Amino acid sequence: MYDAIKIKLNNIRNNKVFELLVVAVIIISALEIGAKTFELPESAISVTTFLNTFITFFFLAELTIRFVADEDKKSFFRKGWNIFDTLVVIVSLIPIEDSEMALLARLVRVFRVLRMVSVVPELRILINSLIKALPQLGYVVLLMFIIFYIYAAIGSFLFNQINPVLWGDIAISMLTLFRIMTFEDWTDIQYETMEVYPMSWIFYISFIFFTAFAFLNMVIGIVVNVMEEEHQAARAEKQPSLSDLQQELKEIKAALSDLQNK
Amino acid sequence: MYDAIKIKLNNIRNNKVFELLVVAVIIISALEIGAKTFELPESAISVTTFLNTFITFFFLAELTIRFVADEDKKSFFRKGWNIFDTLVVIVSLIPIEDSEMALLARLVRVFRVLRMVSVVPELRILINSLIKALPQLGYVVLLMFIIFYIYAAIGSFLFNQINPVLWGDIAISMLTLFRIMTFEDWTDIQYETMEVYPMSWIFYISFIFFTAFAFLNMVIGIVVNVMEEEHQAARAEKQPSLSDLQQELKEIKAALSDLQNK
Amino acid sequence: MYDAIKIKLNNIRNNKVFELLVVAVIIISALEIGAKTFELPESAISVTTFLNTFITFFFLAELTIRFVADEDKKSFFRKGWNIFDTLVVIVSLIPIEDSEMALLARLVRVFRVLRMVSVVPELRILINSLIKALPQLGYVVLLMFIIFYIYAAIGSFLFNQINPVLWGDIAISMLTLFRIMTFEDWTDIQYETMEVYPMSWIFYISFIFFTAFAFLNMVIGIVVNVMEEEHQAARAEKQPSLSDLQQELKEIKAALSDLQNK
Amino acid sequence: MYDAIKIKLNNIRNNKVFELLVVAVIIISALEIGAKTFELPESAISVTTFLNTFITFFFLAELTIRFVADEDKKSFFRKGWNIFDTLVVIVSLIPIEDSEMALLARLVRVFRVLRMVSVVPELRILINSLIKALPQLGYVVLLMFIIFYIYAAIGSFLFNQINPVLWGDIAISMLTLFRIMTFEDWTDIQYETMEVYPMSWIFYISFIFFTAFAFLNMVIGIVVNVMEEEHQAARAEKQPSLSDLQQELKEIKAALSDLQNK
Repeated sequence: MYDAIKIKLNNIRNNKVFELLVVAVIIISALEIGAKTFELPESAISVTTFLNTFITFFFLAELTIRFVADEDKKSFFRKGWNIFDTLVVIVSLIPIEDSEMALLARLVRVFRVLRMVSVVPELRILINSLIKALPQLGYVVLLMFIIFYIYAAIGSFLFNQINPVLWGDIAISMLTLFRIMTFEDWTDIQYETMEVYPMSWIFYISFIFFTAFAFLNMVIGIVVNVMEEEHQAARAEKQPSLSDLQQELKEIKAALSDLQNK
Repeated sequence: MYDAIKIKLNNIRNNKVFELLVVAVIIISALEIGAKTFELPESAISVTTFLNTFITFFFLAELTIRFVADEDKKSFFRKGWNIFDTLVVIVSLIPIEDSEMALLARLVRVFRVLRMVSVVPELRILINSLIKALPQLGYVVLLMFIIFYIYAAIGSFLFNQINPVLWGDIAISMLTLFRIMTFEDWTDIQYETMEVYPMSWIFYISFIFFTAFAFLNMVIGIVVNVMEEEHQAARAEKQPSLSDLQQELKEIKAALSDLQNK
Repeated sequence: MYDAIKIKLNNIRNNKVFELLVVAVIIISALEIGAKTFELPESAISVTTFLNTFITFFFLAELTIRFVADEDKKSFFRKGWNIFDTLVVIVSLIPIEDSEMALLARLVRVFRVLRMVSVVPELRILINSLIKALPQLGYVVLLMFIIFYIYAAIGSFLFNQINPVLWGDIAISMLTLFRIMTFEDWTDIQYETMEVYPMSWIFYISFIFFTAFAFLNMVIGIVVNVMEEEHQAARAEKQPSLSDLQQELKEIKAALSDLQNK
Repeated sequence: MYDAIKIKLNNIRNNKVFELLVVAVIIISALEIGAKTFELPESAISVTTFLNTFITFFFLAELTIRFVADEDKKSFFRKGWNIFDTLVVIVSLIPIEDSEMALLARLVRVFRVLRMVSVVPELRILINSLIKALPQLGYVVLLMFIIFYIYAAIGSFLFNQINPVLWGDIAISMLTLFRIMTFEDWTDIQYETMEVYPMSWIFYISFIFFTAFAFLNMVIGIVVNVMEEEHQAARAEKQPSLSDLQQELKEIKAALSDLQNK
């Protein structure tokens, strides 16, 4: 009897209508979250409360169906997206009354919208490819972190007395440097320190050059990676025809030596 | 007799001089719109009023010529640019006296300048290729929207009390996040919320990273698409010569086996 | 005797030492211009006055040498760089005493630094290739101008009363739109108009999207152009070997048919 | 006996554990520098003083091991990274008591973090490739400098009286132009000079166009360089198989002519 249920649930899981229903519920969940940020009349609030309970139980049901229908229960929780879905469902189920925790509960509910990514395969592929691209950039990111760290240390040694709000310690300095990297009112910071150290423009301009250069390198790194994959794909397509030609040439030579030895 | 008119109008439509005349009238129409934004003497205003009437009837005449000269009347209104041209002409013809509507009439007249795109074929191709490129970016845009939506929800939950002008509801929050994405005075917003939540820099910096990454992905997506088309065009050119070689090799082999069997 | 002078001057012109001397004088000229922007003591001012006279006559001498040594005097003034050099020299020779004109004379002297580009061949090639790339971008620039013009017209119709400094007429509006394109305090402009027209954020965000998209298109256009040239160069190299192979195959086939007919 | 020590030290140097230990000490040194920027209790200060002494002697020991273990002592100091390491160690050893110099000593210690680059081979390769890419950009950088210099000269001639803080001399003007290039509050500068010279927007907008164009050229230059290397690598792989085919074709022709002459 369990197997019969399993097959039925599997049919439900693979049903196109069910998939669309899940997407629809996620969209409703997103709209409910958005609606709550507006000031709502009493009646609308009771609707969102009802919707919230409905969405929680719908997601619980959907997860149960997916879990029961899965062939290999052991590996179900090895997939990152399944763990994410389960966490979102479990945290939604915890009843919260304390006002402090209510904020947390709201935030968790926001992550339900991310379930869109775990449900729509095209988005899942996109995210996976983004995550795959990260380690390739590992050393450029490390280099950028070293640049930030060195400049933050120098910055807080030199400018600590000038403006402790911006250069108080190395952590604050790194935040200030990130601000400078985005060119956000960076000259205000520069003019302030130039009054004490007139040459401190070297600090800012060299920092902008180094980060711009490292960033450029990162972008080119990604482009070259992408291109290399393209080239390899192109080569993989072509090579058979070229080696085919060689094969045919060898056969011709064999036939010729056959003729010569006649 | 109708056919004779049709042929005559068709000759007019395909005449180079007529095309240049249409472009000239569009440029005059653009200049008239520009001139109206300056404070003009009485005499100049009467000139623009006359010009406006002239342009309206010229465009009406031009559209009529194009419609009558067209072979296939049914499909005339299926082309997007024809519908656009017709709408611009019709709205120009409606007499407007109310001051409120006068503003609208002025705005519609601005869109006459867009007729430049519908008339110059090179611009039409450019716009069409832009529109064609959009769906390829569909899922990246969706992902970006999800990122915006989640951050806007979190933002309005957490920072609603701090600055309702920036984080009042989810719609305003999304506008604020767009502002942050353009790096426009984003640290002012950050410093304000960091006074209440000292860790809120994580919110801003993670948001900047996610959107920058998604944007980078978008750009690379376009570049790779463009390159793939290039590669395919290149391959399409080469392949005949490669398969030609194979064909010739096969003929040689046939000739050889002919010789062997002699 | 004229021919003897011509050969001598030609030797001077093609002399490496003479070329380096010209570059050195241009650098001195640049330093003189830079020095004049600082407050200088009396003695230094008389040095710069002497230097200025020396540079003027050196450039005159150099131009004379180049002109006399040139084989084809008629085409000498057809080259853009020669015209530029001559203009710079002639304008330097005009004696100016009026204080108003003195500023102009100073500005003309600044363009002497551009002679660096006309003298160093690598820079000349770089500039020429930049100029050559411009017409390829013609239609994208035209499209961008149309977008700017339409938005500027709409902007000055709608926001004229709100802030005439920014939206007074179509020319000022285009400057304001350029400012918005560089993200420079664009939200200040937006918040101001949103008080009157709450939906005017659509104006700003759509404008940013259109220009960003057009700009992206421009960059990709350049990259694709560059790549196409690369591909063509690559193809030009390869093709001989592929057609060579075909040629050899044809010879083999001829030899075979020869054998068969024996 | 010296040789025995040398072999032992060489074993230490190539030991994976030793390499990781060096990396660990560099990280500790970085943390120590970071910790010093915070206000620390007495006890923590004595810990950092001890740590500092330990790190200085550890680096001295590590450098000695690397020097003694090196086969070719003469070329040891020809490698840039070795010179860098030695300088960092030597400056750390100088005892400094003067408060002025203490700041300098702190700054030198910051450069210890850069030893991360000299120790981790992947980072060393990255930096080397960055340095190698610089001369290729040489002429674009020179062109950009000429653009900056000319605009700075014009700027300080024209706007000197308007705002000497921004346009006082050519050096300050170049800094102001760098600020304009990063779009940082550039319209404030523009509006100020437009009150005196209403056409001065041409100065700013042409400058932004020239630098943007030169920058774009630089990026494309790098991308094309990278791609050319890719193409050459791809060609290097392919060519053998194409010339192989030609070789085989020649052998076939030889065999055929053999047959014909029988």
